[in-house]
Amino acid sequence: MPEFAKRMKTMEKSAKVIRNLFGAMSDPDLISLGGGAPATEALPVEAVREILNDIMQRETRGQEVLQYGSVMGLKDLREVVVHNLLRPVGIEADLDEIMIINGGLEAMNLICQLYIEPGDVILVESPTFVQSVEIFEMFEARCIGVAMDERGMDLEDLKNKIDRYSPKMIYVIPTFQNPSGRTLSLDRREALAAIGSERDIVILEDDPYRDIRYSGETLPPIKTFDQTGHTILANSFSKIFSPGSRLGYIYASKNVMDRLFDAKTATNSHTGIMPQMVCAEFFKRGYYESHHKMICDLYRERRDTMVAAIDEYFPEGTRRVYPHGGLFTWVELPGGINTTDLLEEAVSNPLVKVAFVAGEGFFVGGDGKGSNAMRISFGSVPPDRIIEGIKRLGRLIEAKLSHPEAER
Amino acid sequence: MPEFAKRMKTMEKSAKVIRNLFGAMSDPDLISLGGGAPATEALPVEAVREILNDIMQRETRGQEVLQYGSVMGLKDLREVVVHNLLRPVGIEADLDEIMIINGGLEAMNLICQLYIEPGDVILVESPTFVQSVEIFEMFEARCIGVAMDERGMDLEDLKNKIDRYSPKMIYVIPTFQNPSGRTLSLDRREALAAIGSERDIVILEDDPYRDIRYSGETLPPIKTFDQTGHTILANSFSKIFSPGSRLGYIYASKNVMDRLFDAKTATNSHTGIMPQMVCAEFFKRGYYESHHKMICDLYRERRDTMVAAIDEYFPEGTRRVYPHGGLFTWVELPGGINTTDLLEEAVSNPLVKVAFVAGEGFFVGGDGKGSNAMRISFGSVPPDRIIEGIKRLGRLIEAKLSHPEAER
Repeated sequence: MPEFAKRMKTMEKSAKVIRNLFGAMSDPDLISLGGGAPATEALPVEAVREILNDIMQRETRGQEVLQYGSVMGLKDLREVVVHNLLRPVGIEADLDEIMIINGGLEAMNLICQLYIEPGDVILVESPTFVQSVEIFEMFEARCIGVAMDERGMDLEDLKNKIDRYSPKMIYVIPTFQNPSGRTLSLDRREALAAIGSERDIVILEDDPYRDIRYSGETLPPIKTFDQTGHTILANSFSKIFSPGSRLGYIYASKNVMDRLFDAKTATNSHTGIMPQMVCAEFFKRGYYESHHKMICDLYRERRDTMVAAIDEYFPEGTRRVYPHGGLFTWVELPGGINTTDLLEEAVSNPLVKVAFVAGEGFFVGGDGKGSNAMRISFGSVPPDRIIEGIKRLGRLIEAKLSHPEAER
Repeated sequence: MPEFAKRMKTMEKSAKVIRNLFGAMSDPDLISLGGGAPATEALPVEAVREILNDIMQRETRGQEVLQYGSVMGLKDLREVVVHNLLRPVGIEADLDEIMIINGGLEAMNLICQLYIEPGDVILVESPTFVQSVEIFEMFEARCIGVAMDERGMDLEDLKNKIDRYSPKMIYVIPTFQNPSGRTLSLDRREALAAIGSERDIVILEDDPYRDIRYSGETLPPIKTFDQTGHTILANSFSKIFSPGSRLGYIYASKNVMDRLFDAKTATNSHTGIMPQMVCAEFFKRGYYESHHKMICDLYRERRDTMVAAIDEYFPEGTRRVYPHGGLFTWVELPGGINTTDLLEEAVSNPLVKVAFVAGEGFFVGGDGKGSNAMRISFGSVPPDRIIEGIKRLGRLIEAKLSHPEAER
């Protein structure tokens, strides 16, 4: 066979991280604090059942579900984005500035189609979401990490790296970031939008967790501060409705949308109609509000349980993020423990059997950063299992700290 | 804003053709012989209603529908591909050689991710499917047309162009081709597979119409003759089940699949679960067989009506393809009539109001080929409207032939 294209080589490292991730998640014996999936109990099965039943009762509606649809997405669902999701956070969007896509991740692919040439630099948070990095690398971009602190991306480091690398794009997950759980502060949001405009850089704001907040104050999206169209907002219905429906959206100015129309056409024509129609009805019937409250209550309890368990069972010197929302916390271990080794033991040792995601994979530099860090997910595991999992992990870590010679 | 990537410029011409196509199709006053959509009556609304109802009754099934799924696609639907679609045409595939994708077109995008570097040559049939060309151009491939005759791609011209251009890939729609309605003959299928192997070229076989045949003898896919894995088979559920469900599949050897896993992950993670599950059940419950017979009967009548109407109402010297299946016929008009001009008049003249697709857009050379040709679709229009549409078009063509001075 002919050789694979260069991009398939470029993306190999991140692709391997992701394949390992999928592999680890599929062992049913584990307490998996690894995956990023929503809780099964947080999926609106009953509402979807009712809506589907109503839709398919009507012949013309049923035909609409099964026939070709619009590249931009179902009008009803784009209205939901404008009225139910963007207006409440202070954005007045036009319908033709919204495109419905096949899951939030497709935004990264489509925006790269629009802007990224091989060799272009994309600045990303350090750590960042490895699946987005995989996409950036498939487009042969060079990803450079920008330091973070508790308030998100460090703007001094950002400015230095802009001067040094002349990036085409800055990729940021501002709210309850994956993997760190951190949130970009208000002043930095405003500053980041201005940097995009002033330095002529695309700010790709990926905000899938913003609507699952359990404490603290809601912050406006970076996009609300954008005066020039440099910020593009990508979001997902995976965490607030259903990931299996593969629904997300892009909000961008009209001139960007015109080209997104072409890129989406040349990717898969349009997003499936059935999930779009169900999701639109879910909002239009007013089911979202009570569902949203239910899932936030569910996740808040798990977040609180997780944080308390880490504080109780992990050794002194452990640092962890207190996430005000989302599905993850980020833990840094003391004593030079390597979390990649720890994970291998945690998964294979029959006395532990707990999965998490080792920190290293989330750093683009590959310079050993994050070797003592771990992303721990609390979303899809019931509270008693969270406590049990953290307790077992804590014991394993303590054992390694007191017998460091046993480490490989 | 930063400049768009070069690929967005490369794809501009084909993107424009497609945008015009979508525009023309959306005028409800027209008799549209333009679009490629299946007939509304050919959509299995009742079966889908029943299946959805059953699926969502069961809590765990409902959760499965709404939760994240596998990159490769739902196992049930991959089994359907292996047992119900490939085995009957002589292919024994393994489950892990099948990936479910978001509509047939996504195959072209994913295969380009795997193989195409900017500047690579892709040989295509002349004429060919403009949406695939748009994808190839987004990947900055150079598309070169290969002559066709009534038996499909001309292998002599193909060999000459292989020698001259050293293509990376040959793209072929072997059965009831879009736009020409022609079918690649058996001997050429075998030869094409051998050429791929011998010359180390990917043969991308796009076969979405193969299962809607109304007359003539079924032919095996090119893939059945492939000894080396150079042929990759792409197919769609759009014509046999539902286009709005956005379902298709790729059948390729395991080493190709491993990289497709990465490319699919980096495009949109996986295909939506709801339509996959419904489609799998549609086959597993045995509904496909009677549905298939129903739609073939429906389309056969329309094909016969269309062909007879063209023979009756179009002027002497008209050449048309007799399609044994699919949704299109291809017509070449006499007397130097330009079909792009004809279309403009046919759509805007209140005495005509008929749409088709002008031939030029289907040729990659842009050398005026196809200027007297038109793709006429018979799939989505009832027989009486087909006759009326062709009659009106025939009158307009006759008028232009007898008053050539009125042409611009």
